Amino acid sequence: MGRVTTTTPSPRSRSRLTPDQRRLQLLELGIRLLTNRSLEELSIDTLAEEAGISRGLLYHYFGGKQGYLEAVVQYAADDLYRRTAPPAEGEPLERLLGSITGYVDYVIENQDAYRSLLKSAAGSNEALRAIYETTFTALADRFFTVDTGTLDLPDTPAVRLVIHAWQAMVEDLVLTWCDNPAGLTRDDLVKVITSALPAIIDTLP
Amino acid sequence: MGRVTTTTPSPRSRSRLTPDQRRLQLLELGIRLLTNRSLEELSIDTLAEEAGISRGLLYHYFGGKQGYLEAVVQYAADDLYRRTAPPAEGEPLERLLGSITGYVDYVIENQDAYRSLLKSAAGSNEALRAIYETTFTALADRFFTVDTGTLDLPDTPAVRLVIHAWQAMVEDLVLTWCDNPAGLTRDDLVKVITSALPAIIDTLP
Repeated sequence: MGRVTTTTPSPRSRSRLTPDQRRLQLLELGIRLLTNRSLEELSIDTLAEEAGISRGLLYHYFGGKQGYLEAVVQYAADDLYRRTAPPAEGEPLERLLGSITGYVDYVIENQDAYRSLLKSAAGSNEALRAIYETTFTALADRFFTVDTGTLDLPDTPAVRLVIHAWQAMVEDLVLTWCDNPAGLTRDDLVKVITSALPAIIDTLP
Repeated sequence: MGRVTTTTPSPRSRSRLTPDQRRLQLLELGIRLLTNRSLEELSIDTLAEEAGISRGLLYHYFGGKQGYLEAVVQYAADDLYRRTAPPAEGEPLERLLGSITGYVDYVIENQDAYRSLLKSAAGSNEALRAIYETTFTALADRFFTVDTGTLDLPDTPAVRLVIHAWQAMVEDLVLTWCDNPAGLTRDDLVKVITSALPAIIDTLP
């Protein structure tokens, strides 16, 4: 709650931003607003009030509530994707460790917003669900691309199935850990997540 | 869709059922109705129409829509709990295998209804979420009770954390497998799930 500031920008400070910068600023505000409300409770009206700018301008940027929600979810997904980029150098397991550390830190910093986003992705809004699934797949794809591949995994349907399930596990693990760390440090958690993937893949016939 | 039959019971067949039997029959119908609609789309009105009995009688049984939804979710949870009871005899891993087989078969048979239930549990209805969480915990508790314990796991917060995450993984794994088996048989799937738990627990510091 304390993180949301509602300063009305002066016409001059507003005029310094390009449309892209302004749009980005509005999306960042959207994420901050998710800290104490669900995605469904987010609206052009709320945003207009918090940002101190007109509803008309917001409709111009996002087209309406659905457009705004999609833009916020896509912004969070892109942010998560960037934050989990594995380091360019290092041993496969070290690079996976770096990527997982990025994920864990992202969730720690954005817990409430992340929970809101997951809740929406599990709901009935198909477009939001699609952004979530696309991100899930893009994260999994990293294991199979030459540039960012962190482990030498065969790209088979069975391995893909296990990675998808491991991702669901990681989501649950990190959020449950945020509520109650169960004696595990953040580094312990990263190690469990990282070692679990090859361990689960080893169980495949 | 084809599984939902809408025969209107005759007054005579209706009078043969005790109130408990009738209630059970209505809950089973509720689960069948979830095959082609979400839990939120389920209502006393839908049920009255499908069961061919009066809304008044249904209010008598369930008190209203929320009471009915809670009863349907609780019924599904109890059913799942029964179906996953481990066999009384056998080696720990064999007994876990038996319990997991029960889970996988339950999901295969009730896929659509199960998806509807999970979607609701992830939503904003706190009472439904609570039934889901209680069941999740009851299933985890089995690992630590003398009578039905299937593996000799220490009951520590860290092990509980990992079991919770493994449960989330299993949920995702089985539903994704139902959509696309990825070359795994149902028995392969059961083995992956069963072996994954000790493998993940081994990654704990």
